[in-house]
Amino acid sequence: MKPIGVIHSSFREKAQTPIQPTRSLGVGTVEVYPEYAGGLQDIEGFSHIILLYIFHQSHEYSLLVKPFLDDHLHGLFATRHPERPNPIGFSIVRLLSRSDNILKIKGVDVLDGTPLLDIKPYVPDFDVRTDVKTGWYAQRSKK
Amino acid sequence: MKPIGVIHSSFREKAQTPIQPTRSLGVGTVEVYPEYAGGLQDIEGFSHIILLYIFHQSHEYSLLVKPFLDDHLHGLFATRHPERPNPIGFSIVRLLSRSDNILKIKGVDVLDGTPLLDIKPYVPDFDVRTDVKTGWYAQRSKK
Repeated sequence: MKPIGVIHSSFREKAQTPIQPTRSLGVGTVEVYPEYAGGLQDIEGFSHIILLYIFHQSHEYSLLVKPFLDDHLHGLFATRHPERPNPIGFSIVRLLSRSDNILKIKGVDVLDGTPLLDIKPYVPDFDVRTDVKTGWYAQRSKK
Repeated sequence: MKPIGVIHSSFREKAQTPIQPTRSLGVGTVEVYPEYAGGLQDIEGFSHIILLYIFHQSHEYSLLVKPFLDDHLHGLFATRHPERPNPIGFSIVRLLSRSDNILKIKGVDVLDGTPLLDIKPYVPDFDVRTDVKTGWYAQRSKK
């Protein structure tokens, strides 16, 4: 695994960083390294993109964690906590514009300097489920 | 990056494998290695989970590809093609049941033996977007 680019945001510290893209109005940029820029062709047709990246400030993990939105312990894989055995993050952001290898995005929820692993187009036919149950999240102690 | 488990399916060859979970009724299992099983606590409350895994039979990539659903070339990052600089796949599957470290899932679209990197709960508040445009996919040549 090697970064294909870097995500720039205004968030310099974990405590400042929004919990999820849907809770962020932050604008940022995705810089795709020039050798990969050819892979961005046609991406501007998509309003939303999926970013896969490294939680680069996560170095240890526990199998039981308290998520940001709850006061109870849950299994790590039943949460979106950033400290994981493979610290890969995944965010769906709005693509505002593209200028060559630079994507301007909205809804950024990652630290400035986050290493980018992949970009995929967000496609509701693939990525939306209905009739969903959300366990502890539906009963969470914080909104 | 090291696998935390393995995904078992009935698909032994790439050509057999469904294009996306939403096009698959396939039932499979996720075997989480015993040392990570504690992280599964409370996951059975979620009807759908996100699997991150390695496209382990992808070894090379092109920056321009023809997606399975279209006859035209598109930038790799505007497609879900499995051959990528960091060959990480992402599928949302239905969680049918859990027995200790084994999850029974429906909608599996990966090859048998796929190395698992992470499991996250699918949460519509985080993972669903509306007012979406899907570029070439909306005009694709194959359904």
